Amino acid sequence: MSRNNKSVGVVKTKYFEFDELALASGEKLAPVRVAYETYGKLNRDRSNAILLCHALSGDAHAAGKHRKISRKHGWYDIAVGPGKTFDTRKYFVICSNVIGGCKGSTGPSTINPKTRKPYGIDFPIVTIKDIVAAQKRLIDHFGIKKLFLVTGGSLGGMQVLQWAVTYPESVHLAIPVATAAKQYPVGLVFNDIGRRAILNDPDWRGGNYYDRGQPKRGLSLARQIGHITYLSQETLLRKFGREKAKRGNGKRKFGIEYELQSYFDHKGKSFVRRFDANSYLYITNAIDHFDLTEGGKRKLADVFKKVKAKFLLVSFTSDWLYPPEQVEEIYAGLAEAGVPSVYKKLDLPYGHDGFLVYNNTLGNLLLKFIENEARKYFKAV
Amino acid sequence: MSRNNKSVGVVKTKYFEFDELALASGEKLAPVRVAYETYGKLNRDRSNAILLCHALSGDAHAAGKHRKISRKHGWYDIAVGPGKTFDTRKYFVICSNVIGGCKGSTGPSTINPKTRKPYGIDFPIVTIKDIVAAQKRLIDHFGIKKLFLVTGGSLGGMQVLQWAVTYPESVHLAIPVATAAKQYPVGLVFNDIGRRAILNDPDWRGGNYYDRGQPKRGLSLARQIGHITYLSQETLLRKFGREKAKRGNGKRKFGIEYELQSYFDHKGKSFVRRFDANSYLYITNAIDHFDLTEGGKRKLADVFKKVKAKFLLVSFTSDWLYPPEQVEEIYAGLAEAGVPSVYKKLDLPYGHDGFLVYNNTLGNLLLKFIENEARKYFKAV
Repeated sequence: MSRNNKSVGVVKTKYFEFDELALASGEKLAPVRVAYETYGKLNRDRSNAILLCHALSGDAHAAGKHRKISRKHGWYDIAVGPGKTFDTRKYFVICSNVIGGCKGSTGPSTINPKTRKPYGIDFPIVTIKDIVAAQKRLIDHFGIKKLFLVTGGSLGGMQVLQWAVTYPESVHLAIPVATAAKQYPVGLVFNDIGRRAILNDPDWRGGNYYDRGQPKRGLSLARQIGHITYLSQETLLRKFGREKAKRGNGKRKFGIEYELQSYFDHKGKSFVRRFDANSYLYITNAIDHFDLTEGGKRKLADVFKKVKAKFLLVSFTSDWLYPPEQVEEIYAGLAEAGVPSVYKKLDLPYGHDGFLVYNNTLGNLLLKFIENEARKYFKAV
Repeated sequence: MSRNNKSVGVVKTKYFEFDELALASGEKLAPVRVAYETYGKLNRDRSNAILLCHALSGDAHAAGKHRKISRKHGWYDIAVGPGKTFDTRKYFVICSNVIGGCKGSTGPSTINPKTRKPYGIDFPIVTIKDIVAAQKRLIDHFGIKKLFLVTGGSLGGMQVLQWAVTYPESVHLAIPVATAAKQYPVGLVFNDIGRRAILNDPDWRGGNYYDRGQPKRGLSLARQIGHITYLSQETLLRKFGREKAKRGNGKRKFGIEYELQSYFDHKGKSFVRRFDANSYLYITNAIDHFDLTEGGKRKLADVFKKVKAKFLLVSFTSDWLYPPEQVEEIYAGLAEAGVPSVYKKLDLPYGHDGFLVYNNTLGNLLLKFIENEARKYFKAV
């Protein structure tokens, strides 16, 4: 992840629409819109595509800016661009917003064609399988038979696993980062508490708040609950420690007294401006239902038997939401299934957020692996 | 902690009242009532007293039952009684409810003599120092010059540290468990999010809810946020895993689908029946302000220089709320100050809750240490 390399410049979100998607629940979603962005050029034989899968609060805008004057870059700009880890001089990089989301793809805030009002919680339940199925339609639309690489962290990593399992012919390399083959109890409880915070907010109004405004307090609280699980004690100590807030309202009882509180308050409030509360319910619900073992009915090694991708798995020592053991469980399952894979546990202090934080340790690891595999792959193709 | 030994039987909570307490904030609390229970007999020279300090949601009722027919025992019944770790045939065991609490000691739900209404958030801010100062008055009332032992886990451990620092002549042995010399960022943020959940609940009504009933949803959510931080992934996996709820409402979108959710829902709801929301605000606030280094102005070793107690420090490997490093920081400070101390890191799977969970590892450690010290102490006294 070379900070000094160039940006992809000004980009635009595009939309791909199709008639309907049969969901894992048995319901149908119709029509379906998938928001996406691409960077770089698809080569002639359509073999150089990389699919980036975003995490809970991400979107299709992974790199570049939407306006020349904007200072805001895509969520993975540090890694996507000419000369960067996902080198847009070589690869055609695709990132699409998950269905159920609120960043351009069909989700609970979309107008339901049957009622001409936003779906709200009439929106059908979506799973990681559905999210990936919608991405597959986009990939088909590009005429791509096989993705050179599918990668992502956290929820993104679950999508990577689902891709490799459901579409084994379509994935050459898979790099899931800081993720798990199933959602574990601690993560499930945190997501559930976040959902309760939203559902408890009187402004949620059973999900029909679109004409009145978001359930601000509940959504802000949900985000704060999530955010603390992404960070490490070390990060918080280094950034804030027990420093008193510069602009607090600490004279009010139980107000903002520490810089730390001010930071989390800000994180919550800014999330309300950019994310839909119902999408938060649907996407965390999809994460919590993710379980490749299907409730323990299937062994991971059996699930992975048909996988054809080669894997690089990455975990972080300071990640307590998706700790190394959970990535190691995937690694063991792949090994037992005979899937070629490399596992790296990185001793980095950034907590779960390590998959997003700029650092050379992760950047160089990905870069070397990808370059090495590319040399073999593009000679052979 | 010998499960087979006898209970102290039927006990009664008593109350000690005094005129006023000058608080660390500069305010005065007047009058003050401290709810307490005692087990065993104070010996002639008043040298055999053990003070148990309870954690966030505890109370004065540490052992025995309140009624013969009740099945509910005190919170530390497993460890307090004839032949148990805190052997009531030998020791006079005292446990008192913290001020600011809601279990009989003066707190925000107490009637404010000035207004003849419950204090609500007119109740003054209390600190760990204040909590301990109120306990000291109780100890003085018994005519006890020196406590043989002060012990407690979590918030209880902070009280132990404060006792040893503020009243060095009054503590012979100190056993703080699963605690820290200051509240660290992760714990502070979780407490703060819990407080926000209460403050956000419209039923909180600025703290004046006593005639209308508790802010149920907010307090329940706060408890759930706290409770998840007390447990380990391993405990939750063993108890619940991803098992579906027996009596869920999972057909409702985002209802209770997993046994895990049902358990946390129950934990929240039962807490609402037994704990006051304002007390939750005050006590977590006292925890978050605990910092023996006074914002980094003092070195721990300097703070500990006047300590006369001997220490046994205990941490748990699976405790991620007050992890071993935080107990080790206390140990290092004591060592530098020349305070005799023993530190044990116990490899137990129960998370932070390890200080309350029945287990022979912790029980035998405490028992041996106490018996060994008692042999020396009671010969000398």
